[in-house]
Amino acid sequence: MPGMLNKLLPRENAFFELFTAQAENVHKGATALVHLLENYQNVAVQVDKIKTIEHTGDELTHDLLTRLNQTFITPFDREDIHNLSSKVDDVLDLTDAVASRLVIYNVHKVRPGFADLARILLLSTDEVRKAMGNLEQQNGLMDHCIEINRLENEGDRLSRTMIAQLFDEEKDPVELIKWKELVEVLEIAIDKCEDVANVLEAVSLKNA
Amino acid sequence: MPGMLNKLLPRENAFFELFTAQAENVHKGATALVHLLENYQNVAVQVDKIKTIEHTGDELTHDLLTRLNQTFITPFDREDIHNLSSKVDDVLDLTDAVASRLVIYNVHKVRPGFADLARILLLSTDEVRKAMGNLEQQNGLMDHCIEINRLENEGDRLSRTMIAQLFDEEKDPVELIKWKELVEVLEIAIDKCEDVANVLEAVSLKNA
Amino acid sequence: MPGMLNKLLPRENAFFELFTAQAENVHKGATALVHLLENYQNVAVQVDKIKTIEHTGDELTHDLLTRLNQTFITPFDREDIHNLSSKVDDVLDLTDAVASRLVIYNVHKVRPGFADLARILLLSTDEVRKAMGNLEQQNGLMDHCIEINRLENEGDRLSRTMIAQLFDEEKDPVELIKWKELVEVLEIAIDKCEDVANVLEAVSLKNA
Repeated sequence: MPGMLNKLLPRENAFFELFTAQAENVHKGATALVHLLENYQNVAVQVDKIKTIEHTGDELTHDLLTRLNQTFITPFDREDIHNLSSKVDDVLDLTDAVASRLVIYNVHKVRPGFADLARILLLSTDEVRKAMGNLEQQNGLMDHCIEINRLENEGDRLSRTMIAQLFDEEKDPVELIKWKELVEVLEIAIDKCEDVANVLEAVSLKNA
Repeated sequence: MPGMLNKLLPRENAFFELFTAQAENVHKGATALVHLLENYQNVAVQVDKIKTIEHTGDELTHDLLTRLNQTFITPFDREDIHNLSSKVDDVLDLTDAVASRLVIYNVHKVRPGFADLARILLLSTDEVRKAMGNLEQQNGLMDHCIEINRLENEGDRLSRTMIAQLFDEEKDPVELIKWKELVEVLEIAIDKCEDVANVLEAVSLKNA
Repeated sequence: MPGMLNKLLPRENAFFELFTAQAENVHKGATALVHLLENYQNVAVQVDKIKTIEHTGDELTHDLLTRLNQTFITPFDREDIHNLSSKVDDVLDLTDAVASRLVIYNVHKVRPGFADLARILLLSTDEVRKAMGNLEQQNGLMDHCIEINRLENEGDRLSRTMIAQLFDEEKDPVELIKWKELVEVLEIAIDKCEDVANVLEAVSLKNA
C-alpha cells in the first residue's frame, strides 16, 4: 500500500463521500425507528435491524477517522471533520439506544406522542442528510441548519409536554421511569442533530 | 459589509467584551434562580424570565462563535475561546433546565437545602463573572479558579447529602425521582463552573 | 524557576511517565472497587480509599495538563495529550461515582452480576494500563485497543441484561432506581475505557 503517497496526495472527495454515506445511514436509522413505532410488532426483529444500521455507522465513522488520521491535507479543518463525524454518529447511537430500550424495558405499547417525537428526529436527520450532501458546494447549508434548529425547539417543547403529562397521569413509578428515559434519550438524539448543524455552520463561516 | 477587512483587522477587544457580557448574563440567570427558590410564587412567570435570560445567552454565544469563525487572529487560542464560550453557556442552560423542571414536575414546595445548593451556584457564577472581567489583564484569575474549585467541592458534598436524605426519607418514588433529578441537574450546573475555571487556568498558564 | 528554559527544552519523557502513573492509578481504583464488591464489609472505609485514589488521579491529571500548557514541543499532538489525560481521568471519576453511590444509596447487599460488571472494568483498565506503558514505543497498542473494544461490548451486553432483569424482577421502585443508576454509571466507566482506546488508536495512526 502506497501509504506515504496516500498521505501526500489525498483524495479529498473521499471525506465528502464518507460524510454523505454516514448521514444517509443515520437517516436510515431514524426511518427504521419511526417504522417500528408506527408498526409496533415483531419488535425484537425491528430493533435488531436498527442495531445493524448502528454497526454500519460505527464502521463508517471508523473509516472516516482512520482516513483523517492518515491524511495531511484535509478539505476543511481537521478538528471540524472529527467533530462532525462524531456528532453525526452520536445521533445514530441514540436512535439505537431508544430502540434497544424498548426491548430492555419490555415495552408492549407505544405511548401517545412518542411516534411524533420520532418523526421530528426523522425530519431532522433528513435535513442533516441534505446538508451533508451539499457540504462540498455549501448550497443552502445555512437553510438546513436553521430548519434543524427549528425542529430542535419543536422537539424540546413536545418532550417537555410529554414529561409533564407523564408525571401528571402515570401512577405506576416503574412505567414513569421507563417513559421518562425513553423521551429523554429520543430528545437528546434530536439535540445532537443541532450539534451537527452548529459544526456545519462553523465550517460554512470559516470558508465563506 | 467590509467582511475581508473585518477578518484582517479584528477588534480583539470584542472577544473580551462578549465574554464579559456572557458571564454577566449567566450570573443574572443564577440570581433569578435563587430569587425564585427564595420567593416560590408566580413560579411560571419567574421560570419564563430565566428562559428569556437563557435565550439572550444563546444569542451571545452565537455572536461570539460567529465572530470567532470569521476572525483570523484571536487574542488567545481559538480552541480555548470556543471551549470557554461553550462551557459558560452550559452553566446557563443547566440553570434554565433546573427552573423549567420545577414547572414540568409541578413542584409546589421547595425542599430544604435546595436553595442552599442554588446559592453555591450563585457564588460560583459570581467568581466566573469576576474572572471573565479580568480575563484580558489576567488579574487574580487563579484566585477565582481556586474559589470555584472550592465551591464545586462544597456543592458536591451538599448534593450527596441531599440525595442520601432523599433515599432515606422520601417514601414516594415519584417525588424521589423529581428531586433526585433536580439536585443532580443543579449540581452539574455547579460542575460546569469548574469546567470554565479549568479552561481559564489553561489560558492563564499558556500566556504566563 | 527557569520557566523559559523549561518551555524550550521540555523533558518529553515526563508526559509518558505521567500517563503511566495516571493509568496505574486508574487500575488501582478499579482493583479497589472489585475488592469492595467481592468483600462487601467496612463499606465506608473501602469507599473512602477509592475517593483517596480519585484525588491522587485529579492531582496527576492537573500536573499533566499544567505541564502541557507550559510546554512548546510535545511528543505527540497537544490536543490528543489533553484528550487522553481527560478520558483516563473520567474512568476513575466514574469508578469513584459508583463507589460513593453505594454509600449514598445505603446499599446493604450487592446484586448478582454487579461484581462481574466491575471485573470487566478491571480487565479494561488493565489493558489501558498496558497500552499506556507502551505508548512511547507503541508496542502492541492496537491489540490492547481491540481488547478494550471487545470488553466494552461484553460490558454493554451484561449491563443490558442486568437492566432488563431489574425491570422484570424488582418490584420496589426505589431499589430499581438505585440499581439502574449503579449499573449505568459502571457501564459508562467501561465506555470511557473505549474512549481512551479511540484516542490511542488516533495517536498510533498519526505516528505510523
